[in-house]
Amino acid sequence: MANFGGHAIPGSFFLLYGFWLTVKHILHHYWRSRQPKGRHITPPLFTKMDYVEGGLLMFGSFVGIMVEQFVVDGPHAHLYNDNSWVKLMNWQHSTMYLFFGISGVALVCSTGWKLVSTGVDHLAISVALFVEGFLFYFHVHNRPPLDAHIHSLLLVAVFAGSACSLLEVFIRNNIVLEQARSGLFILQGSWFYQIGFVLYPLSGPKWDEEMHANLMFVTMCFCWHLAAALLSVVCTSSMTWFTVKRCSGRERDIEIGMRDTSSNSSSHKALLEDSEED
Amino acid sequence: MANFGGHAIPGSFFLLYGFWLTVKHILHHYWRSRQPKGRHITPPLFTKMDYVEGGLLMFGSFVGIMVEQFVVDGPHAHLYNDNSWVKLMNWQHSTMYLFFGISGVALVCSTGWKLVSTGVDHLAISVALFVEGFLFYFHVHNRPPLDAHIHSLLLVAVFAGSACSLLEVFIRNNIVLEQARSGLFILQGSWFYQIGFVLYPLSGPKWDEEMHANLMFVTMCFCWHLAAALLSVVCTSSMTWFTVKRCSGRERDIEIGMRDTSSNSSSHKALLEDSEED
Amino acid sequence: MANFGGHAIPGSFFLLYGFWLTVKHILHHYWRSRQPKGRHITPPLFTKMDYVEGGLLMFGSFVGIMVEQFVVDGPHAHLYNDNSWVKLMNWQHSTMYLFFGISGVALVCSTGWKLVSTGVDHLAISVALFVEGFLFYFHVHNRPPLDAHIHSLLLVAVFAGSACSLLEVFIRNNIVLEQARSGLFILQGSWFYQIGFVLYPLSGPKWDEEMHANLMFVTMCFCWHLAAALLSVVCTSSMTWFTVKRCSGRERDIEIGMRDTSSNSSSHKALLEDSEED
Amino acid sequence: MANFGGHAIPGSFFLLYGFWLTVKHILHHYWRSRQPKGRHITPPLFTKMDYVEGGLLMFGSFVGIMVEQFVVDGPHAHLYNDNSWVKLMNWQHSTMYLFFGISGVALVCSTGWKLVSTGVDHLAISVALFVEGFLFYFHVHNRPPLDAHIHSLLLVAVFAGSACSLLEVFIRNNIVLEQARSGLFILQGSWFYQIGFVLYPLSGPKWDEEMHANLMFVTMCFCWHLAAALLSVVCTSSMTWFTVKRCSGRERDIEIGMRDTSSNSSSHKALLEDSEED
Repeated sequence: MANFGGHAIPGSFFLLYGFWLTVKHILHHYWRSRQPKGRHITPPLFTKMDYVEGGLLMFGSFVGIMVEQFVVDGPHAHLYNDNSWVKLMNWQHSTMYLFFGISGVALVCSTGWKLVSTGVDHLAISVALFVEGFLFYFHVHNRPPLDAHIHSLLLVAVFAGSACSLLEVFIRNNIVLEQARSGLFILQGSWFYQIGFVLYPLSGPKWDEEMHANLMFVTMCFCWHLAAALLSVVCTSSMTWFTVKRCSGRERDIEIGMRDTSSNSSSHKALLEDSEED
Repeated sequence: MANFGGHAIPGSFFLLYGFWLTVKHILHHYWRSRQPKGRHITPPLFTKMDYVEGGLLMFGSFVGIMVEQFVVDGPHAHLYNDNSWVKLMNWQHSTMYLFFGISGVALVCSTGWKLVSTGVDHLAISVALFVEGFLFYFHVHNRPPLDAHIHSLLLVAVFAGSACSLLEVFIRNNIVLEQARSGLFILQGSWFYQIGFVLYPLSGPKWDEEMHANLMFVTMCFCWHLAAALLSVVCTSSMTWFTVKRCSGRERDIEIGMRDTSSNSSSHKALLEDSEED
Repeated sequence: MANFGGHAIPGSFFLLYGFWLTVKHILHHYWRSRQPKGRHITPPLFTKMDYVEGGLLMFGSFVGIMVEQFVVDGPHAHLYNDNSWVKLMNWQHSTMYLFFGISGVALVCSTGWKLVSTGVDHLAISVALFVEGFLFYFHVHNRPPLDAHIHSLLLVAVFAGSACSLLEVFIRNNIVLEQARSGLFILQGSWFYQIGFVLYPLSGPKWDEEMHANLMFVTMCFCWHLAAALLSVVCTSSMTWFTVKRCSGRERDIEIGMRDTSSNSSSHKALLEDSEED
Repeated sequence: MANFGGHAIPGSFFLLYGFWLTVKHILHHYWRSRQPKGRHITPPLFTKMDYVEGGLLMFGSFVGIMVEQFVVDGPHAHLYNDNSWVKLMNWQHSTMYLFFGISGVALVCSTGWKLVSTGVDHLAISVALFVEGFLFYFHVHNRPPLDAHIHSLLLVAVFAGSACSLLEVFIRNNIVLEQARSGLFILQGSWFYQIGFVLYPLSGPKWDEEMHANLMFVTMCFCWHLAAALLSVVCTSSMTWFTVKRCSGRERDIEIGMRDTSSNSSSHKALLEDSEED
């Protein structure tokens, strides 16, 4: 959808998703850092959070596909008509949504069923980002230089996010890697907005899409977005951490009391579980 | 062989091989998940399956080379004649078959001889895929845009498969990685069919090989094939898993009885083997 | 700043930083090699060194940004004026300084607060180098061949350094990796000087920027700088190592005496710490 | 040196070096597989072999540099003369030799001094290969298609070898990786000969350097060299393994006798060494 709204909608989605991941990962990290070595049981809250996240991904991508297909000037589920392809742009966007939906399914399945191997959810999100970047890459041909350049910069965030998720298939529970991925989602989201502002300005004159200085500014602007994304991750993480810490202060006294009584019986079991998981 | 059949034959091979790998890996995974920690003895069934797989790879590539060489308009084992190369296309295809044959030999050797290091079989399949992609890459020059593009998309599947196999030299028994490789083989197979359908349509008019919209559709279509390949792997894996589970239900009662009697004598030995293998 | 000084200043910075890292890493390595297995407490000297390094990075980048902005022909904090961008070159350099400042903040935070995950400092320096390379990459378009080539060679050092730092997020305390990064900083520094000498010669005629032989010489010269950087790292490392060894010779006798008395009580605790850290 | 000899000399060197590495690695592997878990003392024979290898590398590269400099039409150590660079080709070759000499120094040092970290020797050989590829890459511009293509194929072997060595800095004693590197050296050597045969044929007419079919043949031929290199590594490895096995058959009886008596005293020490090394 070649207008400001068409860039603001995915931008908002990726911004929200990025912030959500930041909060989720910091909660996981907080939980891990407070656990004694032997325990690895995920609390039910995290399981519920993953179900909600997966469900929203599925719902969001379903809505996205429907909108792309049945919008007034959409293809209405027709692919080929009168010897030409119908609205391929909308079909490509539907395909991108499809893969984010698949990653939602993968997240729900890997949370709900023990049979599904850990890592499948990260692989699915990595594939979804790869497909997004892959389609964008061939999207961009034969456009004016500024348009092509500003979309290529998006690809840097997309493919870096894909590589990050792929690494997480093998290196799990690494907070630096997890927050790097969150930051790349935020970067992607804010850059979608920037694309909207540059190519379809809400007010003022249109940008000259051939001027080299515009390209140079846009490149630099991408770095500023990167700095802002890093700052957002750091601020959100700190705020979440200290909020959780204060809230859990009161509960801990009770918890410690409970742990003392149960530790004698559970310590041996926890050790066994630990060695089985390694 | 520039016709539909010439793309359907390798397509069928890669499809079958991909499904076969899916089933094999899920059987391995099932076996591993049911074993107590200390045991690492591969059951004779898996050894036999690897022999058959290696043998079929060798046989298939031998037949492939023979067909490419001695087909009616083939080079009949002549390489250089009358100051020009004879049917280089057929020679290149023979070379590709040769490397898949080598990977068959590597599989049989690494299964049969303890001396051959584990990982050689994965390295060989990685090299075979690399050579396939390498030859295709230089194959494609000076073709019409659609032809070149549709073959480049194949390279994505081929090189991703090669990278996946290379990783498996170092990271073994990771089910996510194993099934990713299976999925990439299935993707390659179904894409070969797609190439056949696009470049040599069985019915209807020829595709316009210069039209940009065709390129855009083909790019999107590749993503759909990827989604279908993922779905195939998931379905095949689940079906295999539940079939095996039901079948092994009855046997288990007997097995447990046997294990109880033998566990006292074998546990110490298994532990030793485990520590040697790490 | 397109003159000799504009290349000598960053060159000197990177040279000094590279030598500093070499000394720091070898001191860390010396300390690690002398510790009994169980101890992992960083001595206060190293913590102080990291504070100073982070502080200098922040101070240096602040000065750098101020100079770039408020130099006589600088943009004076104006970005857009009279329908055109103001001094984008200076803005880009400010952006590069900004990210090195951020890496200084990350270093100080990760040293001072236990909450900040280890690896954040390396990720920040990796991002800083990536941004530097990223901006340089789009900097170089539409320049004469020699100018473009000599800056692309710089990118080799910059991106290799970025990749090296990224690896260190996951592989910590590997002296080979650490000194490789130090060497790449030294290479970057000396190559900045070389760029200055070639493009803005202090004496003698200007270089012909179109001549192919000049490009070939410059490529080879980069390899010589690489050899010199390796030599510098090796010499600095050896000198530091032997200096520290001689200095600590006298202290050791006392230390051993102390360790003997304390070992009985501390050995059990040290073991626990070790197992917790793994 | 643009003649057949100029390609046969490095070709022979790389072939010999590749075979030497194959034998060395298989001897190491044989030794490791025969050792009880706790022992990690390298036998003096391997240390001596590394000294000889490093010495030969240094000697060879010294001779290489001298020949390149003081051959009849060489630069005789003049770099710049009469406003132009003198024989840059010879200088570039000297630079390549220099880095192989450095890797010889690194090998000797890391074998002789315990202070030098393990992995330095592999890093040095990786850098030497990188520099070789790096110089070749810019070497090739403005040549006829066949000449450029045949040299680019060489780069595949060179950079793959460099990546392989770099991996070995982190993953040590992996026989598959070690023999892959040996194979890539053999491939490089045989491909140097092939370049000589194609560009400076000893007999018969010159190759048409513009014909596309020649490029296609050369690409395929590279794959055949790869297959031959793999075969060479496999044959050399097997022959070495069985020769060593037969030779050590007699000695073993004595060794076992010795080990039995010494095992009681040494087993505890070996275990300690093992845990220190991990």
